Amino acid sequence: MRHKPLAVVLVSGGMDSCVTAAIAAEKYTPAFLHLNYGQKTEQRELRAFEEIAAFYGVKKKLVVDARFFTEIGGSSLTDETIPVKKADLDFQGIPDSYVPFRNANILAIAVSYAEVIGAVKIFIGAVEEDSSGYPDCREDFYRAYNRVIEEGTRPETHITIETPLIHLKKREIIERGLSLKAPLELSWSCYQAGDEACGVCDSCALRLRGFAEAGREDPIPYKVRPRY
Amino acid sequence: MRHKPLAVVLVSGGMDSCVTAAIAAEKYTPAFLHLNYGQKTEQRELRAFEEIAAFYGVKKKLVVDARFFTEIGGSSLTDETIPVKKADLDFQGIPDSYVPFRNANILAIAVSYAEVIGAVKIFIGAVEEDSSGYPDCREDFYRAYNRVIEEGTRPETHITIETPLIHLKKREIIERGLSLKAPLELSWSCYQAGDEACGVCDSCALRLRGFAEAGREDPIPYKVRPRY
Repeated sequence: MRHKPLAVVLVSGGMDSCVTAAIAAEKYTPAFLHLNYGQKTEQRELRAFEEIAAFYGVKKKLVVDARFFTEIGGSSLTDETIPVKKADLDFQGIPDSYVPFRNANILAIAVSYAEVIGAVKIFIGAVEEDSSGYPDCREDFYRAYNRVIEEGTRPETHITIETPLIHLKKREIIERGLSLKAPLELSWSCYQAGDEACGVCDSCALRLRGFAEAGREDPIPYKVRPRY
Repeated sequence: MRHKPLAVVLVSGGMDSCVTAAIAAEKYTPAFLHLNYGQKTEQRELRAFEEIAAFYGVKKKLVVDARFFTEIGGSSLTDETIPVKKADLDFQGIPDSYVPFRNANILAIAVSYAEVIGAVKIFIGAVEEDSSGYPDCREDFYRAYNRVIEEGTRPETHITIETPLIHLKKREIIERGLSLKAPLELSWSCYQAGDEACGVCDSCALRLRGFAEAGREDPIPYKVRPRY
């Protein structure tokens, strides 16, 4: 078998990261990186991460304790006192689930890890459209970040960020995942933990709408399956 | 008293960060941020951080557990198996105390914190010359990072990084600190922990040489005080 270069893949355990892993695995040997940052779904996401890693036979993986997000606070994903809102897909602006500058923190850890293990790429499943206004999910942000990596790493290090989903719609991500036989049944997108996804948070709503548009049935179980 | 805007100051507890805090405190209300990242001198640095914070009457301060550096490894500051080298001020290249992409991680945390508390500046005591080749201590790196902050934060957020020491020599930093009455006696620069600084690591060597060049006596105790 041909030697494939190493790539760090950020795997939250959600569907987008699952499809991103499938794309990375085509040309690279994936090293999986996951962050626990005090999110309510931490254990459920970690299970999805481990199951997707096992599916792809990943040998290098790292789970990082980034709980400082909870200490910094300011977000409904990390602050217990702010309830998760029901989905409102017409909402404009930055949702209260925004962890300030989250992806810059994640990328910094990924670059440190990549430089140590000798990976040449960092794959992240950021999506510009579906990310409802998170400023650090836009292509311009990743372009600026690549420049920071170039400036801030050893001269002989050449690591760039890949965002293969950045311009895709949820429907297209699902179709891409299905064509690559990504294990979507192992992924977890819901903002609540449990054996079944809630079906009503923003993340469930986007996922269910995507499957509806793709004309496919989402393989994971839901408490309720509204039509979006 | 005039209201001063908030600025996050990265305070490792070392001399450079002590002088940086003094500079920040002239025009801003400082909020102190410190990282524990598994460095051997963690407890000693934390003591210096707390004492400098008390000196400036700092109300907002955050100590972050960034121990993931240890998990990622690859550096003599975090990896117990790599010994700290004796000083060699003529060494060219990147020293083995380099934590890959460390400052990008620190800045990401600082920006998240700054956005939550409403700070407008991030002060970091990076020094281009004395940092013996750390790629993330150069001005170009900070310029690129300011662009990432602009792209990756809320549209109404305007945070920029200030590097007031970036082009100074150690002697000039010491002179600046003395003129601002910075509590240099509370700072800790040595790569070893203890009641007295070792006097022989890179960091002690740079500090002692700086004081010698400034014609002043370093107020902290040393085990040995070589002439550099």
